[in-house]
Amino acid sequence: MQKSFDISSSAGRYGVEVGTGLLSRTLAANPDAIIICDRNLSGYLPATAAEPIYIDAVESNKSLEAAPSVIVALRQRNANRNTHLIVIGGGIIQDISTLAASIYMRGISWTYLPSTLLGMVDSCIGGKSSINVGGYKNLVGNFFPPKEILIDTAFIRTLDAEMVVGGLYEAAKICYARSFEDFRDYLDTKPSYPLDPDGAEAVILKSLTTKKWFIEVDEFDNKERLLLNFGHTFGHAMEAATNFGVSHGIAVGVGMLIAINYATRRGELGAVGIERTAALAGHVKSKLGDGKFSVVVSPPTIPIDGVLEKFTHDKKHRTDAYRVVIPRGDGALELVPQQRSDEVHADIRSAYEETIADIGWQFE
Amino acid sequence: MQKSFDISSSAGRYGVEVGTGLLSRTLAANPDAIIICDRNLSGYLPATAAEPIYIDAVESNKSLEAAPSVIVALRQRNANRNTHLIVIGGGIIQDISTLAASIYMRGISWTYLPSTLLGMVDSCIGGKSSINVGGYKNLVGNFFPPKEILIDTAFIRTLDAEMVVGGLYEAAKICYARSFEDFRDYLDTKPSYPLDPDGAEAVILKSLTTKKWFIEVDEFDNKERLLLNFGHTFGHAMEAATNFGVSHGIAVGVGMLIAINYATRRGELGAVGIERTAALAGHVKSKLGDGKFSVVVSPPTIPIDGVLEKFTHDKKHRTDAYRVVIPRGDGALELVPQQRSDEVHADIRSAYEETIADIGWQFE
Repeated sequence: MQKSFDISSSAGRYGVEVGTGLLSRTLAANPDAIIICDRNLSGYLPATAAEPIYIDAVESNKSLEAAPSVIVALRQRNANRNTHLIVIGGGIIQDISTLAASIYMRGISWTYLPSTLLGMVDSCIGGKSSINVGGYKNLVGNFFPPKEILIDTAFIRTLDAEMVVGGLYEAAKICYARSFEDFRDYLDTKPSYPLDPDGAEAVILKSLTTKKWFIEVDEFDNKERLLLNFGHTFGHAMEAATNFGVSHGIAVGVGMLIAINYATRRGELGAVGIERTAALAGHVKSKLGDGKFSVVVSPPTIPIDGVLEKFTHDKKHRTDAYRVVIPRGDGALELVPQQRSDEVHADIRSAYEETIADIGWQFE
Repeated sequence: MQKSFDISSSAGRYGVEVGTGLLSRTLAANPDAIIICDRNLSGYLPATAAEPIYIDAVESNKSLEAAPSVIVALRQRNANRNTHLIVIGGGIIQDISTLAASIYMRGISWTYLPSTLLGMVDSCIGGKSSINVGGYKNLVGNFFPPKEILIDTAFIRTLDAEMVVGGLYEAAKICYARSFEDFRDYLDTKPSYPLDPDGAEAVILKSLTTKKWFIEVDEFDNKERLLLNFGHTFGHAMEAATNFGVSHGIAVGVGMLIAINYATRRGELGAVGIERTAALAGHVKSKLGDGKFSVVVSPPTIPIDGVLEKFTHDKKHRTDAYRVVIPRGDGALELVPQQRSDEVHADIRSAYEETIADIGWQFE
């Protein structure tokens, strides 16, 4: 199996490689690089590595207000425009590093090693950052892809079951968004927890090569790439209303279940679509598990009114309609505006309530 | 004379237009645009314009730390990814607006109307921002050109003699950097204070169409565009050491005189070069004036030791050599590394002292 491939972007081509031993290889090859690293991963760096810039992987650190401290830390290590950065961490570290690398002396090159499965199967490619400002989540961002992305599967052993399954949900979503055929190919990679290194490589390569299609045909989120928001609009409202008590990957998985329930309720699905979405829903639920076997050890009680409040105020919506990605017809995804009507509101509420009850979580 | 032209950049083509009445025309054409404006220019906006985001044109506002307040002001005016910005002001307003427009929802389109002559003849094109962070000047920045640049020469009446002459120095520098022929063409536009609207158009068009060549052949500052640093390395050290008591445009003019003095002292110039640089120096000095007729009403005393300290620590230098642009041979500019030797240091000091005495300023 090919373990590396390239992505074409407006900022040039960049490479992606999946394997083991990539962290130590790149550190050895770039002895003068400056390292930015999730503080929790300090134990995984070789003792010989230069003192990194450590960042705590907390939401407040992926903010425009937190950017100056990263920039000043680079300056204090004498970074210049020829400096190469090596960035190790999950989404928060990637977001703030994308911004910092893009503006430091008007842009310096960087290598990214994602440490979460969610990063490995999805967010490591595409070049986007999402940054909070003044309490507004993800209000600013930019596109500044790394020069290379090295996916060292050794980091997977640092992840618990919930983090692995959350990552798998993003992978399942990407493949389903492309076609049911791709989703079936994805299932053939046997995605499950625990993920051994060989299994992880197959899952990651299937997910990323599928995502590659989306970001190459629609780098700037105008059409095809918007389908990757499947599960996100429903899921994000739960994350926000529980103050991130539901983690992102899990919210996406449950969000897909809610979107399927909503589409079914609205009569959007034909016979083939019902069968295909049932296959996706069955996969999601089997990975979630239930009762004491659930990967979410203690799910928060979901405040439905608060969730609906967050849902209706999502900045992706239009004034007259909600913009949600749902399966239709034979189960293929579409971005379908939903009028802001009482009927739509009632169906959204029912989709949340029925799905949450179905997976054995509490709501109020 | 053609009053509009296009610039090709990696971010696409953008247009430049020079004339009068452009501010009211664009406000009328974009009734839903959000306006960012130098607070000092509030009186120049039509009473019908929507309440702008006012920014004070002070150095501390072109900083990464100040960016969140601009972003939050955009959000409070409900800016979305289709919002168009109209930005009115000089370099500080342009810098912070470039950054804000580039990251707000990953980039929104904008129109820029420079209000200073320096902006009109030089910095309005090229798409670069320079932003301070943590007390480090211009440590970060990016490239995000406006969709269109409208140079409304009516703003020139808001400028005093020092600001006009400072702008003319940048224009003279650009033309001289391209060729002595271009510098002569520039002199034919009769650059002087006061600048009437017709004269201003000729000066601006000559300067910008010349700069267009530099930024199209070298958008990202790798080679040709570096020649536009002529006068800047010597000048910037004076700005910094006087805490910006010398304004930028004037510093560039005097910086060119110092660079010419230094190059002559080092024996870099042939007979033709001496003649051509004398023509440039004569032009600069005639615009500066002297005594009570100088455009700089009360020049600060120049602290030579402090200036040399700033010069030697300029971040553009290499560890072993200073990177300065000087005239050589027949007077053409070159980026010529100068070894960090006692001899070079002595010549730099003498070039400063002799030039400053020559223009009638004090030093200590």
